[in-house]
Amino acid sequence: MDKKLDNLRHSAAHLLAAAVVELWPKALPTIGPVIEEGFYYDFDFAGYKSAPGLEDLSKIEKKMMEIAPKWKSFDKSEVSAEEAQKLFKDNPYKLELIDELEKNKEKITLYKSGNFVDLCRGGHIDNPSEELKHFKLTSIAGAYWRGSEKNKMLTRIYGTVFFSAKELEEYIGRQEEALKRDHRKIGKELELFTISEEVGPGLILWLPKGNIIKEEIENWAKETEKDWGYQRVTTPNITKSGLYYTSGHLPYYKDDMYPPMKLEDGEEYYLKPMNCPHHHMIYASRTRSYKELPLRLAEYGTCYRYEASGELFGLMRVRGFAQNDSHIYCTQEQAVEEFISVMKLHEYYYKTLGITDYHLVLSLRDPKNKKKYHGDEEMWALAEKLMREAVSKIDIEMVEDIGSAAFYGPKIDFIIKSSIGREFGISTNQIDLFMGKRFGLKYTDKDGGEKTPVIIHRAPLGSHERFVGFLIEHWGGNFPAWLSPVQVKVLPITDKNLDYSKQVAKKLDEAGLRVEINENNDTLQAKIRDAQIQKIPYMLIIGGKEEEAGKVAVRSRESKDLGQMDLKDFAEKLVKKIKAKELDLAL
Amino acid sequence: MDKKLDNLRHSAAHLLAAAVVELWPKALPTIGPVIEEGFYYDFDFAGYKSAPGLEDLSKIEKKMMEIAPKWKSFDKSEVSAEEAQKLFKDNPYKLELIDELEKNKEKITLYKSGNFVDLCRGGHIDNPSEELKHFKLTSIAGAYWRGSEKNKMLTRIYGTVFFSAKELEEYIGRQEEALKRDHRKIGKELELFTISEEVGPGLILWLPKGNIIKEEIENWAKETEKDWGYQRVTTPNITKSGLYYTSGHLPYYKDDMYPPMKLEDGEEYYLKPMNCPHHHMIYASRTRSYKELPLRLAEYGTCYRYEASGELFGLMRVRGFAQNDSHIYCTQEQAVEEFISVMKLHEYYYKTLGITDYHLVLSLRDPKNKKKYHGDEEMWALAEKLMREAVSKIDIEMVEDIGSAAFYGPKIDFIIKSSIGREFGISTNQIDLFMGKRFGLKYTDKDGGEKTPVIIHRAPLGSHERFVGFLIEHWGGNFPAWLSPVQVKVLPITDKNLDYSKQVAKKLDEAGLRVEINENNDTLQAKIRDAQIQKIPYMLIIGGKEEEAGKVAVRSRESKDLGQMDLKDFAEKLVKKIKAKELDLAL
Repeated sequence: MDKKLDNLRHSAAHLLAAAVVELWPKALPTIGPVIEEGFYYDFDFAGYKSAPGLEDLSKIEKKMMEIAPKWKSFDKSEVSAEEAQKLFKDNPYKLELIDELEKNKEKITLYKSGNFVDLCRGGHIDNPSEELKHFKLTSIAGAYWRGSEKNKMLTRIYGTVFFSAKELEEYIGRQEEALKRDHRKIGKELELFTISEEVGPGLILWLPKGNIIKEEIENWAKETEKDWGYQRVTTPNITKSGLYYTSGHLPYYKDDMYPPMKLEDGEEYYLKPMNCPHHHMIYASRTRSYKELPLRLAEYGTCYRYEASGELFGLMRVRGFAQNDSHIYCTQEQAVEEFISVMKLHEYYYKTLGITDYHLVLSLRDPKNKKKYHGDEEMWALAEKLMREAVSKIDIEMVEDIGSAAFYGPKIDFIIKSSIGREFGISTNQIDLFMGKRFGLKYTDKDGGEKTPVIIHRAPLGSHERFVGFLIEHWGGNFPAWLSPVQVKVLPITDKNLDYSKQVAKKLDEAGLRVEINENNDTLQAKIRDAQIQKIPYMLIIGGKEEEAGKVAVRSRESKDLGQMDLKDFAEKLVKKIKAKELDLAL
Repeated sequence: MDKKLDNLRHSAAHLLAAAVVELWPKALPTIGPVIEEGFYYDFDFAGYKSAPGLEDLSKIEKKMMEIAPKWKSFDKSEVSAEEAQKLFKDNPYKLELIDELEKNKEKITLYKSGNFVDLCRGGHIDNPSEELKHFKLTSIAGAYWRGSEKNKMLTRIYGTVFFSAKELEEYIGRQEEALKRDHRKIGKELELFTISEEVGPGLILWLPKGNIIKEEIENWAKETEKDWGYQRVTTPNITKSGLYYTSGHLPYYKDDMYPPMKLEDGEEYYLKPMNCPHHHMIYASRTRSYKELPLRLAEYGTCYRYEASGELFGLMRVRGFAQNDSHIYCTQEQAVEEFISVMKLHEYYYKTLGITDYHLVLSLRDPKNKKKYHGDEEMWALAEKLMREAVSKIDIEMVEDIGSAAFYGPKIDFIIKSSIGREFGISTNQIDLFMGKRFGLKYTDKDGGEKTPVIIHRAPLGSHERFVGFLIEHWGGNFPAWLSPVQVKVLPITDKNLDYSKQVAKKLDEAGLRVEINENNDTLQAKIRDAQIQKIPYMLIIGGKEEEAGKVAVRSRESKDLGQMDLKDFAEKLVKKIKAKELDLAL
């Protein structure tokens, strides 16, 4: 984190609060932290009939502009709890915070800038009047006090701030691009998926066109993983609770799971939040020999996690998702080589999709908080050593993150960047020395002795939901031909060309292409525009000239005229391009 | 039902009870009904340390043989409740039955044959000593009194009986064949699926080889349904409860569902027991025009139903299953034509699989019990009329079953027969005039008015679980090449042929065939036997002669020597055969 920028953001949050209480004197400021792309401040507007809305943001910005030049500095003062309580006597939120500070025996500090005083730990810029210039309020939303649904709903105002006008402009530009590429917006426009209030939040219904993308990815994963020596299985979405007590996920992981289905006989069933224990049951379904290892079981398994409703976000954060999952059971000697192969599989997938910007995060145990984790010292050290050894043999940048390991071992996450620079954690990988023992998994070794297999966890393509969400943003909805729900749109210039257009569409369909005809009574220009809005990679324009010559006039989504072609020639070239999963549209 | 045969079976049940109480005088007979393939009788052996087992059946049969010639007739007497209670004073089960007869004001009748008297409604043969000759006790099992897990566990003895020795022999032959073809036995031998006590009863874990069969069927359905104008969707496995109150499944269908997941805020989520309401939500996700109809949404959707544990049976009766489901939304004018097309799709599927023996059952409302059903007279009459009209245009035998309609309309089930003559209900079809209204589904008609679409439900391939179970029995595990998990086994005669065998396997793999090599240090005969046990359709025997000539010696599972072939020639022929989904193995 950039300390200077954080201080600027924090200072701007004070400025926002000062402006709001000047405009709405009965508003109660609560807290105003720094976040990834700026800051926010939460207010209680209960003193007013209604809280401000989006339309009020420019008014608030204007007030901030007025106030900022008057702020020469942030002046700190340390006060007693009584003094602080007196000062904030009308603000129950601040009083709650003061109580906590007192209980925890922490210092209580106030910061004053201009006429505005706030309860604050500090961390500001030195010259607010000079530096607080390039800010913008970005949005407004409801948010529960302290994030709990049991508390009151407050109004959260988001903003961002930079040291220069140029940086702010660039940020706004990126935001506008991100907004255009918002997967929820494009998902709706292209009819890829929907979420139904009746079915439940965070549960994706894949519409026919989105389902095509999902299936193309899944088929690709199946083919690829077959070539890489994986075997596919299918396991149920539910299980008796005992499996998660064995794994150690219950009771600790309970809050992230849907509640159990309680049968009359006392048995409890859970929706699976991950596929691992089910795969372990397949491993354990008969005795295993070293000759079978590495045994790579793969499944696009559908899991359910009860994410907080405030966290849900389109396809990116959902409650039900189909994971590109696999568990590799191998000997300890095979583990490094297998893990390298898994890293290489990631590289292959990402390269094919034109994802060039990614790195690894190695999540380690917090050595100061060992109670949070299962397993002994030796196991943790060995798992880390094996993973580091594997990563040292490949050429991907890695950073370390202390304290974010899984409870049963260190992990390596792949972080991929979309074409507009946003990062997404997509795949978690582990060399797991813990669960094999926990589940009593065994294999008979060469010498006849029983050993416990190492388990490698991996999911290069993450979940269908998150991955398709990422790809929508990455390409702005302009999917390459192989992933496009409709690959070719046939555009008859007039009704007279309809019959020939249908013959063309039929032949393309027979060649295995996904094709539609625009039969509307529109102008050609309108038909082209419509196909472009639908982001269909190729348009075939059919007029009298084409019909006579038995040809098609090809146009790409990018408004490129690709010229007249023989239909057969076009179909062959496109089929070849699709088979090779090429990303560009040149034929 | 054959009344005469039923009377014979019922008489044999009396004979069984008489034999058991002679051998175990403290045994308490309870009830002994006729069932599909014979009869059973339930006994309480609480007076003994342990109940009889399989090993005792021949002893009981012998005793039956002894008793039968002494039974000249079944003599009826009508008695008062008191008299009956006195007679059965030591048998609480009979006393419970007598109480019920009394409560319902029914006649109480006894039947005496030889020394044996039983409480019985009647229905016997006239000359037991002549006719009770050709019987066999087939199995013994635990069963709860009156089928309820809350009651005591009794011992159930099953048997069968015929009028001639020939019929009994034929039956035993069929039973032996059925036993050999038992999908649970073959499923284990071929490693197709497993059920894990830890995951839960009735929940199938598809092992790699079974998963191949499942996916081949699914891919075939996807291709076929694409050709037939279906669009694929994917919907979640769960939903808020409201959806099932809308459909009318809750609360009435509750006993067949897993219990709800209850969230803290009072919301209840259910595992979906069917896909219909989810598909309706996709239909309802935006406005629809008549131009889009028929809209055919298809999904191999995974559903869960809480079947009673006593009903669970391998793949045939499960608690989680992936349904070959679709819902067709169309205008009323399109309904008959669409339904005919659905019937023809069934014919295409079954013909391809060599299922030639099937018929339809039209399930109608019980006109005497209209309270059981939703919807008005007109709707029921119209739905029945449309379905009859469609069926009249195809050439499939249909029988009628009064009283087994769904609560919202009549239905047509496909009943298919396996090659050993066992029947399986596989697909339910409906022209549904009820749910469209119930869910408020609409389309804008040509004239701009709003109308409710007709919904056609269909599932020609049933569920993966039941259908694969059926196919295992139908083929006795000898799957045609296109469905075989391993299509070719390469058998090197000696280790010297291993390298060439690997080249052969690699080339077949590249041709898209599923191939394995037997690298064990066994004799060729053992390798052939092993491949036959695994029911692999083709074996390629590789010796020095083949290696020199660059050929392969081909042998089919049916022990047919198909001669020497060029590898390329073999691969091409087999690929072609697989693509055509041919059932025989001739090349």
